Amino acid sequence: MGKLPDDARGHTRGPKDSRGVVVSRIIEVARGAFAEQGYDATSMRSVAIAAQVDPRLVGYYFGSKQALLEACLVPPPGFLERVTEVVTTDLDARGEALVQSLLLNWEDPASASILRSIILIAAQHPVALERLRLIVTGSLVGAVATKLADEERTLRGGLVATQMLGLAMTRYVWRIEPIASLSSDDVVAIIAPTIQRYLDGELRAAS
Amino acid sequence: MGKLPDDARGHTRGPKDSRGVVVSRIIEVARGAFAEQGYDATSMRSVAIAAQVDPRLVGYYFGSKQALLEACLVPPPGFLERVTEVVTTDLDARGEALVQSLLLNWEDPASASILRSIILIAAQHPVALERLRLIVTGSLVGAVATKLADEERTLRGGLVATQMLGLAMTRYVWRIEPIASLSSDDVVAIIAPTIQRYLDGELRAAS
Repeated sequence: MGKLPDDARGHTRGPKDSRGVVVSRIIEVARGAFAEQGYDATSMRSVAIAAQVDPRLVGYYFGSKQALLEACLVPPPGFLERVTEVVTTDLDARGEALVQSLLLNWEDPASASILRSIILIAAQHPVALERLRLIVTGSLVGAVATKLADEERTLRGGLVATQMLGLAMTRYVWRIEPIASLSSDDVVAIIAPTIQRYLDGELRAAS
Repeated sequence: MGKLPDDARGHTRGPKDSRGVVVSRIIEVARGAFAEQGYDATSMRSVAIAAQVDPRLVGYYFGSKQALLEACLVPPPGFLERVTEVVTTDLDARGEALVQSLLLNWEDPASASILRSIILIAAQHPVALERLRLIVTGSLVGAVATKLADEERTLRGGLVATQMLGLAMTRYVWRIEPIASLSSDDVVAIIAPTIQRYLDGELRAAS
């Protein structure tokens, strides 16, 4: 196997292609294919052909289709930093901070493409669903007040997820108007109070 | 073409199969394939094989893959009746009525399967996206107070969509806990106030 990358490099890579560039290109093509055609209909060979690399190279770098999928679902750069920022914001401003972080994550095309893929593949494949659950647990439950009991925190994090994910789908995946072209300021002003109520407000009118 | 259904009937249909039964079976199989594998990866032939009918029969009944897709996206039975019920509820109880209609639509497996397909295919195919937009416009915008200006009504209907679709995805498509196993009463009690605010409440804290 040691000689394979050299052979394959001669096959299609330009003189300036580094290993990182090729790996990125394979991941980008695979991510689109998994999201648009589904996991089952995507093969490592079809990804290699679309990425214009030797099919053996995809096997060499990723080993298996499952491993290639995992590589496609790594949270986007900057995502974790934004999560940390939200979690360290004052609790009463966290609704706004969460909506703002959603806008930042989705208005950066590279980050949006990864999040979109996780969301779409999650409906079909357990690995992507697990990643989506981790994002919900790690970033949204983490924003709920830590003084609350775990069960209450998980519920509130889940409620935040229903609104955040619904907003992301409507605005960025389906692009349903007028939500798709609403200004960022309007999105924050209108949606933040909902998130804030789920984070620390009264949940049931009767209680 | 006149003789084709007779030939095909002999091929795989049991003695009690009527045209309606075969058409329903084809649609059910096609809906699953479009939703799980995507539109491009699904062929009329693969649907016929999975539905155990003569491939010519799918062509005979539906004409084209696009027409087969359209048949898969017809709103579920009872859906329009539930929409009408919501629209005729008092405005101040409509948030609750909308959440209750969502629960009814999604807890009926036949109806849930159609809605799930529309939602999943909408991310990839314009016909399904158009159907999703019609559902949003027809059922959600219709629930907003008619005294408001059109632009305001469309905005509010879109906001309702972000929460309703996000709830449906989280609870029924991705089944993220604890939202997936929350009691219906809790879902209504917690989510209805959000919907009600989008329908007729103050949208911007500053306004």
